[in-house]
Amino acid sequence: MRCAVSEVYIAAVGQIPVSKGGDTLGRRLGAAAIEAALAEAGGVVPTALYVGNMMSGILSDQQQLGALVADAAGLRGIEAMTAEAACASGAAALRLGVMAVKSGLHRAVLVCGLERMTHAPRARTTAALATASDWVHEGGHGESFISLNARLMRTYMDAYGARPEDFAPFSLVAHDNACGNPNALFHKVVTLETYLGSRELVAPVRLYDASPVCDGSAAVLLVDEELARAAARDGKPLVRVAASAAATDSLALSDRASLLRLDAVIASTGAAYAQAGIGPDDVDLYEVHDAYTIITVLSLEGAGFAAPGEGTRLGVEGAIRPGGKVPIATRGGLKGRGHPVGATGVYQAVEAYEQLTGRAGANQLPLATVAMIQNVGGTGATVITHVLVREG
Amino acid sequence: MRCAVSEVYIAAVGQIPVSKGGDTLGRRLGAAAIEAALAEAGGVVPTALYVGNMMSGILSDQQQLGALVADAAGLRGIEAMTAEAACASGAAALRLGVMAVKSGLHRAVLVCGLERMTHAPRARTTAALATASDWVHEGGHGESFISLNARLMRTYMDAYGARPEDFAPFSLVAHDNACGNPNALFHKVVTLETYLGSRELVAPVRLYDASPVCDGSAAVLLVDEELARAAARDGKPLVRVAASAAATDSLALSDRASLLRLDAVIASTGAAYAQAGIGPDDVDLYEVHDAYTIITVLSLEGAGFAAPGEGTRLGVEGAIRPGGKVPIATRGGLKGRGHPVGATGVYQAVEAYEQLTGRAGANQLPLATVAMIQNVGGTGATVITHVLVREG
Repeated sequence: MRCAVSEVYIAAVGQIPVSKGGDTLGRRLGAAAIEAALAEAGGVVPTALYVGNMMSGILSDQQQLGALVADAAGLRGIEAMTAEAACASGAAALRLGVMAVKSGLHRAVLVCGLERMTHAPRARTTAALATASDWVHEGGHGESFISLNARLMRTYMDAYGARPEDFAPFSLVAHDNACGNPNALFHKVVTLETYLGSRELVAPVRLYDASPVCDGSAAVLLVDEELARAAARDGKPLVRVAASAAATDSLALSDRASLLRLDAVIASTGAAYAQAGIGPDDVDLYEVHDAYTIITVLSLEGAGFAAPGEGTRLGVEGAIRPGGKVPIATRGGLKGRGHPVGATGVYQAVEAYEQLTGRAGANQLPLATVAMIQNVGGTGATVITHVLVREG
Repeated sequence: MRCAVSEVYIAAVGQIPVSKGGDTLGRRLGAAAIEAALAEAGGVVPTALYVGNMMSGILSDQQQLGALVADAAGLRGIEAMTAEAACASGAAALRLGVMAVKSGLHRAVLVCGLERMTHAPRARTTAALATASDWVHEGGHGESFISLNARLMRTYMDAYGARPEDFAPFSLVAHDNACGNPNALFHKVVTLETYLGSRELVAPVRLYDASPVCDGSAAVLLVDEELARAAARDGKPLVRVAASAAATDSLALSDRASLLRLDAVIASTGAAYAQAGIGPDDVDLYEVHDAYTIITVLSLEGAGFAAPGEGTRLGVEGAIRPGGKVPIATRGGLKGRGHPVGATGVYQAVEAYEQLTGRAGANQLPLATVAMIQNVGGTGATVITHVLVREG
């Protein structure tokens, strides 16, 4: 009755440069990324589109992006819907796409991550981002994502004696890596002095601990094994989605078992390792959700790369750099490439695919075979992890 | 390489009465419907939750309902995300649940439709609903869903010479049926005189052509074939999701090929018929998306129950009544039960399941074996169709 379903592969990717202050409509941003993916699709025709987006309804008065973006991209008529899981919306759409192919209901589907955040007044965007928190207990009382992450960071510093300079490497490495990525928002080297000298948004979170508000869109085409192998005969690389796993936690920090542990990171990473048949040592790159440096540290610990309280050492010791034990943010991450929230999870997939197929340009890692990408909604309330593996 | 995947069954359902003006938090509405479904789940433990919702971000400053509602329902930790396709968000979540089980990634998943609309000022809710239209071309220019449906209705009346009284039966039958449904918002018989005497919201749409603003939540538990058959041995009815199909169209009416034809209804119904191996004559009840009487008429035509221009005859001739050829809105539909938008698609599934399993109380149809449910986003931009079949 139950049997093995199709494996899922990435057949093509597309992205647009992350930007600030443009006036292009969201549908056009999405369509541009989709058109880029379709341009390298080799004639494969998708029959569904899943859009990851968080704030279009609030900031642009526009819902139903699935049908809207499908139409804008010349795909009117196909199945479409929007997936939302706050800042993990992109990965939610990616997971939806994986299910659609594995279910046998589709053989080729598009996943598009899309967010437009810079056209609204900054205060409105900040409030919209706080709708990912528990509004009754947090956002509605004036908490923002900066203040919530500040609470996590302060708790961590108090518990483990971590100093500000221990967090700096996560920001510096991301900015270094972004310099080699033409689609990144920032192309500037950040030094320890700059990091330490940057203003505190909400102590102890400094400007360079936080990812920027920006606009962007990315897309991937997922196909079943038969289509992927046919494309491979024509010379296309084979990149398999070896794991897809999601887990949740309370939105409100006050309801958590511990502020020093992201349970949903632990659960979704554990499930992803089990699905892919790997462990942390097998991961060649980890596109971590570095929205805030404290989230990076807690994610590295939750994913098994460091013991609790020792995540910052990975930064200090250089393990997170391109040649290190666990390279992160290899194309700039959320901090350097930018964090257009609903698009981020799909940018991560695009960038990991590029690393695995030798398309990462100035940022190319040697011998990357296994990439783990992780997208976090809220301060750890929804965590979605995918493992991509290059075959052959 | 490709093989038959698991069939998907409904194992349990839950709902709360549709209401107006309550002050219960959305998460609690969702949790109540889920708890009702779990109470009859016979110990089956779901491993994921998919929430259908359209406007929580706009009207309640709360996104990430997947994780939030999971937590409120005592399911903290499980996979969760939100599906959005405007007024078809409930069916989008249902389709996501179907994919999750068919993909083999889950054996039992919860689907919850949820919307809270009456706590905001009426003008704000009306504007929020218009975010399902093309905001750049319609909503942003002052169009509402009433005015857009008025354009469809006027065009239909002009083309086919339909009169106001031709639309009345769709409203009257829905209200008649709602009288027997304890979970319906309205329990009052509406007469032709009341219908014709009701005020025009935007001519020719009268008050009784439109579904009400309200709050509600419904839930279904989907399981794979093995779990369903095990439950059947304990006496549970077997209701299979025999088809699940989605299609889209332009959001803007001005971009449509024809205002008299809902192409996405035609496409998704056609695909659903093909999947289930049935045609219109095999459908025992059609839970149609009767948000506006004109949508009902165009849907009946698009789904093949009447030729173009002849949909209103099904009302006049009584075919849509419980004993008729194609009973619709059997528990009151969107008009009588109410239309809490993101919840509606799941209410439809709950009600169809009740009909197929002899639980429809005063509204029970005799010998109902095949139910078609259809949920429409916008004025036909996203249309998602499911066919439920009682086995044995």
